[in-house]
Amino acid sequence: MELTFNPQNFSPEETQSGETKKEILDLFSVTDSSLLKARNETDRRVSEVINEFIGGSEVSTDVRLNDLLTNFCKSEIPDKPLNVDEYIAFFNKNIIRHSTRTSSPRYIGHMTSALPYFIKPLAGLIVTLNQNVVKAETAKVLTPYERQVIAMLHRAIYQFDSDFYNHHIQNRESVLGILTSGGTIANLTALWCARNSALGPCEGFNGVEKEGMDAALKFYGYKDAVIIGSAMMHYSFEKAADLLGIGSNNSIKIPVDKNNHIDLSELRKTVEECHRKRRLIIAIIANAGTTDCGAIDPIERVAEIAYKEGCHFHVDAAWGGPLLFSDKYRNRLKGIELADSVTIDGHKQLYLPMGLGMIFMRNPQAAKSIEKNSNYIIRRGSIDLGRRSLEGSRPAMSIYLHAALNIIAKGGYEFLINEGIKKAEYMAGLIKSMREFELLTEPDMNMLLYRFIPERLRGKAADHMLDDADNEVINKYNEQLQKLQRNGGYSFVSRTSFSSELYQNKSLVALRAVLANPLTCEANINEVINDQLNIAKRLNL
Amino acid sequence: MELTFNPQNFSPEETQSGETKKEILDLFSVTDSSLLKARNETDRRVSEVINEFIGGSEVSTDVRLNDLLTNFCKSEIPDKPLNVDEYIAFFNKNIIRHSTRTSSPRYIGHMTSALPYFIKPLAGLIVTLNQNVVKAETAKVLTPYERQVIAMLHRAIYQFDSDFYNHHIQNRESVLGILTSGGTIANLTALWCARNSALGPCEGFNGVEKEGMDAALKFYGYKDAVIIGSAMMHYSFEKAADLLGIGSNNSIKIPVDKNNHIDLSELRKTVEECHRKRRLIIAIIANAGTTDCGAIDPIERVAEIAYKEGCHFHVDAAWGGPLLFSDKYRNRLKGIELADSVTIDGHKQLYLPMGLGMIFMRNPQAAKSIEKNSNYIIRRGSIDLGRRSLEGSRPAMSIYLHAALNIIAKGGYEFLINEGIKKAEYMAGLIKSMREFELLTEPDMNMLLYRFIPERLRGKAADHMLDDADNEVINKYNEQLQKLQRNGGYSFVSRTSFSSELYQNKSLVALRAVLANPLTCEANINEVINDQLNIAKRLNL
Repeated sequence: MELTFNPQNFSPEETQSGETKKEILDLFSVTDSSLLKARNETDRRVSEVINEFIGGSEVSTDVRLNDLLTNFCKSEIPDKPLNVDEYIAFFNKNIIRHSTRTSSPRYIGHMTSALPYFIKPLAGLIVTLNQNVVKAETAKVLTPYERQVIAMLHRAIYQFDSDFYNHHIQNRESVLGILTSGGTIANLTALWCARNSALGPCEGFNGVEKEGMDAALKFYGYKDAVIIGSAMMHYSFEKAADLLGIGSNNSIKIPVDKNNHIDLSELRKTVEECHRKRRLIIAIIANAGTTDCGAIDPIERVAEIAYKEGCHFHVDAAWGGPLLFSDKYRNRLKGIELADSVTIDGHKQLYLPMGLGMIFMRNPQAAKSIEKNSNYIIRRGSIDLGRRSLEGSRPAMSIYLHAALNIIAKGGYEFLINEGIKKAEYMAGLIKSMREFELLTEPDMNMLLYRFIPERLRGKAADHMLDDADNEVINKYNEQLQKLQRNGGYSFVSRTSFSSELYQNKSLVALRAVLANPLTCEANINEVINDQLNIAKRLNL
Repeated sequence: MELTFNPQNFSPEETQSGETKKEILDLFSVTDSSLLKARNETDRRVSEVINEFIGGSEVSTDVRLNDLLTNFCKSEIPDKPLNVDEYIAFFNKNIIRHSTRTSSPRYIGHMTSALPYFIKPLAGLIVTLNQNVVKAETAKVLTPYERQVIAMLHRAIYQFDSDFYNHHIQNRESVLGILTSGGTIANLTALWCARNSALGPCEGFNGVEKEGMDAALKFYGYKDAVIIGSAMMHYSFEKAADLLGIGSNNSIKIPVDKNNHIDLSELRKTVEECHRKRRLIIAIIANAGTTDCGAIDPIERVAEIAYKEGCHFHVDAAWGGPLLFSDKYRNRLKGIELADSVTIDGHKQLYLPMGLGMIFMRNPQAAKSIEKNSNYIIRRGSIDLGRRSLEGSRPAMSIYLHAALNIIAKGGYEFLINEGIKKAEYMAGLIKSMREFELLTEPDMNMLLYRFIPERLRGKAADHMLDDADNEVINKYNEQLQKLQRNGGYSFVSRTSFSSELYQNKSLVALRAVLANPLTCEANINEVINDQLNIAKRLNL
């Protein structure tokens, strides 16, 4: 074969001069050894900055967020490049110190905590490798690697036999689960699959996927479509109902009992009513750890109701999923193996960075209902992970997960889960022993709702005689208390409001504690409670 | 106030003994200085591993992906914790070397490339800070910081005056844009806003958000709903049409001209027809850089059509957005400032890590149509960024963006954009000069479609006499060529197939080059082409 390629005509141009050019290309260079040395120095300085910050124990500075807003009002993009070290110095001075120290052992208010240190070097590795797992061509081995880690967690949930996993683990036509950017996308993906299956293609109809909700309900003869879960289900389900064209008013919220578990007889009644009225039930949802207070619905019983109705059964175990690792507490999730889909978040009780949600599917073919292809990126029949996922380009978050399942392992997670529950029991006991506080929920795992009772109402509280006006006062008091505690910066719990069975479903403001930080010990819990007592002394409402 | 808290009753328990316990808690410790020292050592080793990998220039090993699958078939989660350094060693040996070297200057096939080194220390910083920007209580200053960086890019697009930005930048009722996990979620968010506005609440109706697609179309008296874009629009729009209950068949694809730009007269005809048939146009979409070949639709003209019809106008500038930074090429995006919403990806031409999409809104009140609240996390009226976003918990990806807009700055991005286009012009010239190849698209920016022509068909190709059978042969040839090049591991371009105006809309397999890697120089382009010529010599089809 004759080659007409004449490199003389197309010899590389001399590089342009120009300061910007060199400065910018230096940022990307991967071989210049003097640059690499300087970078090690930068890395070291950043490590110092980070260690200094996370070594502290205050939750935040006492500077109010509103007072910081004025520092962030410039909207012009600078023309000229800034040196990396100058940026790091700026960031250290202005940003880090005013961020939230979620690693503090006294930060027990949200589902965010200290993380294991190995995520730091892995984070550098992940962004430098810059794999895009949407497609094998941009990720290669990270494709089967991600499939493996998904299968490992699938097995922890469903416990099928080895034959099952041997068959599906690397079978490109099977989907055991999907990594997502978070629990919201995971829950949305579950309902998307459920909707597309319930209103799928058949003789004379191309399915809701292709023809839309309006045409699908008409074709199948339903009045409308609904999803059903408890009043405590995560707000992502409301979002999903909106997004999927179901309508958020058709996200039916079943009342809960005094333990915040879904009321089964109400659920049954609602399901029957929907059935009777030709309302399609797209999915029934059970919570395995509500965001409010960690309540776990009776999963097995909810599964029975869903099975009887023949509709999709989803378990939102974004928070509670890792109880699977605890021999002592796994039984609290009994029935999760019956779920058509399960959500678990890596950035919650797997102690991994933000941006790591997961959806698992019992049926490895279920995700076919959401499959999309495109010529340039996701070809039909390919091994590409992007064939069946809501998201497109995605980072290799599987690296955190795979590392953690090996480095922390089942044994480590079991320890962390058991410790969290023990701490919650300790804190619940502490609160129950004190007249200043009222415990509002008995913990199903490691979260508590409670409130402060102002002195003059303690007698009535002890006698269960608080009326609506009293609760109004207590609500305001606790709202103030939580704000002052947050602004003080010494310790932190969050707050919520919920309809309490204890008070005729009156809406109560509650203090909310999440005992998930491995660095938190019982002494820290005492400190948080003492901080509240001290603030309460100054609070005259 | 009397304190009933008696710490004696609730003194912290002695820590349990147990090896696992110590091992696990050590992973989380933030203060033990001997641990911190050991970690520096681990960080250093990981840096070495990374530098060694990215310093290479092969695109990948020549080991076939299928041959690697068997290494990833174990689905049991280990019981016992593994040492971090052992895991790093495993990862280096088995994973890194079989991943894709997206930083290679000869990897010019996808929108993934070398990234600036400062993302590595920042990645460590971000995961260690572990801020969750869904809520100010888990992010504090990162909230106004993210708002600022969004405003900076909003200004680059829309160029409103300083008064506008001063008013909205830190105003909690305004949303100038939303960070998302990627362009797919950004495009979906845009259409979600558009749908919820077009079918919004009014007297006697609660809006599609609350009542669903079926009820909304009925109430407003539409036959159905559609979105309209070119045949080259990203497959995320099809996903979005499916998800939003519109139906992916109602994602109308307008043919493109020979430059892959949307055919305006076809678009006008379609819009009129939809109008006549009471089909609601939820949005008209213009591409600013198609994924296939970087084609830029005539944005201003598409805007006119959308304005006339009064429907939402979205510009998908996931790839092409950063042309805004180039004084030389910004005019190619003329009209983008008329868009109701614009998607730009940080992980594409802003050279930042995966997982950074953005949607910008012209009207700071537009995102109200998707607002959701919940008691425990996103309270009504709060400054929390989670009030108006599809996703819930999110990492502080804004740190990469803020750093890059300062460190690379407008000047740096301008240089990178201009260089990419120059390289694409170089490569296009090279291909046009060679009988072995046929250039299939003239580049609008830094992407090319071309194909190899087997020797015996070159005469016919030069005379524009190729028939369908010939094209069939050439398609197969190029598919093989691309696969062999990929598997060889020396260099990489991707492939796509598209209906070419050049050949009566026959579907052609094309080689696809993306000239975005700042490390790629003209000599590397020569190497890629030479690799293809060498492979072609061995390829007898």
